[in-house]
Amino acid sequence: MSKQNKIIIVGAGLCGSLLALRLAQRGHQVVVYEKRGDMRLEEVDAGRSINLALSARGIMALDRVGLRKTITASCIPMNGRMIHPLGGESFNSPYSGRPEDYINSVSRSDLNILLLNEADASDDVTLHFDAPVKEVDLKNASVTYLNPKTKVLESDQGDIVIGTDGAGSIVRRSLMSRTTELLFNYEQNFLRHGYKELSISPKEDGSWRIDKNALHIWPRGHFMIIALPNLDGSFTVTMFHPYGSDIGFDNLDTDDKIKDFFEKYFPNLIEYMPDYINEYKQNPVGTLGTIKCYPWQAYGKTLIMGDASHAIVPFYGQGMNSSFEDVRIFDDMMDVYGDDWNTIFEKFQDARVDNANAIADLAIDNFYEMRDKVDDKNFMMKRKLEMKLEQQYPDYYSKYSLVTFKPDLGYHDAMVQGRNQDKILLDICDEVKDVSEIDLNSVFQKLQKLNA
Amino acid sequence: MSKQNKIIIVGAGLCGSLLALRLAQRGHQVVVYEKRGDMRLEEVDAGRSINLALSARGIMALDRVGLRKTITASCIPMNGRMIHPLGGESFNSPYSGRPEDYINSVSRSDLNILLLNEADASDDVTLHFDAPVKEVDLKNASVTYLNPKTKVLESDQGDIVIGTDGAGSIVRRSLMSRTTELLFNYEQNFLRHGYKELSISPKEDGSWRIDKNALHIWPRGHFMIIALPNLDGSFTVTMFHPYGSDIGFDNLDTDDKIKDFFEKYFPNLIEYMPDYINEYKQNPVGTLGTIKCYPWQAYGKTLIMGDASHAIVPFYGQGMNSSFEDVRIFDDMMDVYGDDWNTIFEKFQDARVDNANAIADLAIDNFYEMRDKVDDKNFMMKRKLEMKLEQQYPDYYSKYSLVTFKPDLGYHDAMVQGRNQDKILLDICDEVKDVSEIDLNSVFQKLQKLNA
Repeated sequence: MSKQNKIIIVGAGLCGSLLALRLAQRGHQVVVYEKRGDMRLEEVDAGRSINLALSARGIMALDRVGLRKTITASCIPMNGRMIHPLGGESFNSPYSGRPEDYINSVSRSDLNILLLNEADASDDVTLHFDAPVKEVDLKNASVTYLNPKTKVLESDQGDIVIGTDGAGSIVRRSLMSRTTELLFNYEQNFLRHGYKELSISPKEDGSWRIDKNALHIWPRGHFMIIALPNLDGSFTVTMFHPYGSDIGFDNLDTDDKIKDFFEKYFPNLIEYMPDYINEYKQNPVGTLGTIKCYPWQAYGKTLIMGDASHAIVPFYGQGMNSSFEDVRIFDDMMDVYGDDWNTIFEKFQDARVDNANAIADLAIDNFYEMRDKVDDKNFMMKRKLEMKLEQQYPDYYSKYSLVTFKPDLGYHDAMVQGRNQDKILLDICDEVKDVSEIDLNSVFQKLQKLNA
Repeated sequence: MSKQNKIIIVGAGLCGSLLALRLAQRGHQVVVYEKRGDMRLEEVDAGRSINLALSARGIMALDRVGLRKTITASCIPMNGRMIHPLGGESFNSPYSGRPEDYINSVSRSDLNILLLNEADASDDVTLHFDAPVKEVDLKNASVTYLNPKTKVLESDQGDIVIGTDGAGSIVRRSLMSRTTELLFNYEQNFLRHGYKELSISPKEDGSWRIDKNALHIWPRGHFMIIALPNLDGSFTVTMFHPYGSDIGFDNLDTDDKIKDFFEKYFPNLIEYMPDYINEYKQNPVGTLGTIKCYPWQAYGKTLIMGDASHAIVPFYGQGMNSSFEDVRIFDDMMDVYGDDWNTIFEKFQDARVDNANAIADLAIDNFYEMRDKVDDKNFMMKRKLEMKLEQQYPDYYSKYSLVTFKPDLGYHDAMVQGRNQDKILLDICDEVKDVSEIDLNSVFQKLQKLNA
């Protein structure tokens, strides 16, 4: 159906390397330009999050390239949130009532390296590192990049160019520079919170200081800390924190202030973080932004996907998963339309844009939920009810489960259905003092009707 | 309270020239850099709309600089919309039930020239034309511009820089280039419709071919044409039209197709436009975009206002009026805070951003109303009811009147109040066959309660 095409990919991150691998598996010739060095030879990930939550949508895409088992073998399952209220008992809040539903803590660099190695093993893939793309000729599917050896700008032309170059995408910038011609809609929104990474060290025997099969949350209203487990017994700890308030990043600028703040709000956590003051001072503050745009393609020759077309905040754990899903849906399109790129690009963007916007909005919602509601009584009652429903009726999926564990449902439908369910469940919880008072069967009937 | 400051203004359009004049009146030294030529000496407005609707908010700002009477003297009052349905009788839909409420058709270039002359008459204002600003140093309040005589880049530093350089603002681009540092939120959205200007010629005796005291609309569902009167007896006619449909701009590309289209949809209008086919072919298609952003200022040194910070679509006739209102509110801030620019900039953006976003959304709403609803039965009944209410209860303002004729109320409050009123009125209209059945007093009581 499709002859071999030459495809230029800009960006060899998670999305770009998975895409390169899949395109090579389909018999195309793939040339990848990556501005950073080769992470298999050097440390290049400074300032980016160290581990990520891999869930069903991402796994489904990895299955497509035959790497499902390899990758899940080096993941740490997280069955739920472990909530650590200030001055209260910690408690576990499962992600689902079905035991087979969990998310996975995975090292960003391990996963990226595996994908690069698999892609590199193909004769049809050429990887160029330290080769930043400076310009894209959208109509001609050509890129101008800095040759890392000669330090001279050179050009390369393909049948198509796909930009998987992340939130700061150069390829997207080329679309934006054709704003009026393409009627390019674009939106960037930053939370007034940033993030900073710290770490919980392993025990001396290499084991984990706190439950390794959970995503830990210390919710504190206007700010929070979370922690995800690593294979080496450590946890990567992330502060999500305002810039400007009295206790914001801008004002926590001396050892004493840092110490006072952590001792007041995170007294138990700092026991596990012997070096937190130094880490706090050394590690950068990252921004938390959402990017939406449309169109994602130009002239049937150039396309953006992954964070380049839809960067989201990390609070639903779906950034990588949605990018991997892009690759799977793109792959589905090639099944149907071969190498009719113009049609594929049009169909792809129209299939994905509403879903990308939906997970962007859901991720913002989850920021407020995680920092502010996970230890709230009504919210906890709703979660309890959802767990009971999922245990008793495995066909029922909560909003979280629809987004996270039901990859055959698009994000947009998951959002609409999940929000409608939430309304019903919160109304029901409002009328009782304890979940035990609720007739599960009648609730399930109500929800069934909703989704009919 | 404030000593003389040197203020650099980028852009000498409507907003920039009004601002320059006002700042000079307050005793500041003002230097203006404008990329275009001096419109008093040459034609520079190609491709931009020829006339505009000036209403109460704009007039209030012009009053501040003492030009209210001078300017309204050269305006043409428009008391309402004249609707021209396809194959039906034309009818008038007043803007308000109060005879003193009307909007004004004004020539963009006449108004701009008047403001430039007034500013130029001050010893404290220096105007540089053909002097495009290429870069802004946000922190140092300095600009780099191309000296039109020497063709060399030069720098100029002020106490502050204010960008009034329109939707394509270079000053805003400088804010955007500091995205992560400023947490700069930005949104550009284009309608899938563009616009093209045509014209109705004057009668041979120099008078108007159709009622000059109305804004004329030919609503046609997915597209429309409007016309505003000019002093010379002509009308500026604007097509708001899709790009891509069968009869879209992209497809109306031969004389025959253009002729067929106009004869089918605008048979009466073309009688007044003897040269419409040539005009259609010669005149460009403009885009219709909305721009929102935040913050509008950086470091207390650089600010954007007018279209540079909030470009809107033209369907509420508030683009110029909202920019002029910016100048008035900025002037109010200087009354209170003197030359404490950091405070003024912060207070100004926080006072304006919600209002700017509100009029942006209202303008989009009005696009659908004008092309699609002005000849709809329910909508017409609501307008009739609103007119009766305004006639009988002069303290009552419809949504349109709140936005257009009540400049002491912010756009955001006008939007909220207006939308709430609309809901009540539409519900009431739903229940009757004719407005005469409605008890005006009980409706007025209901609306009073709403706004209490």
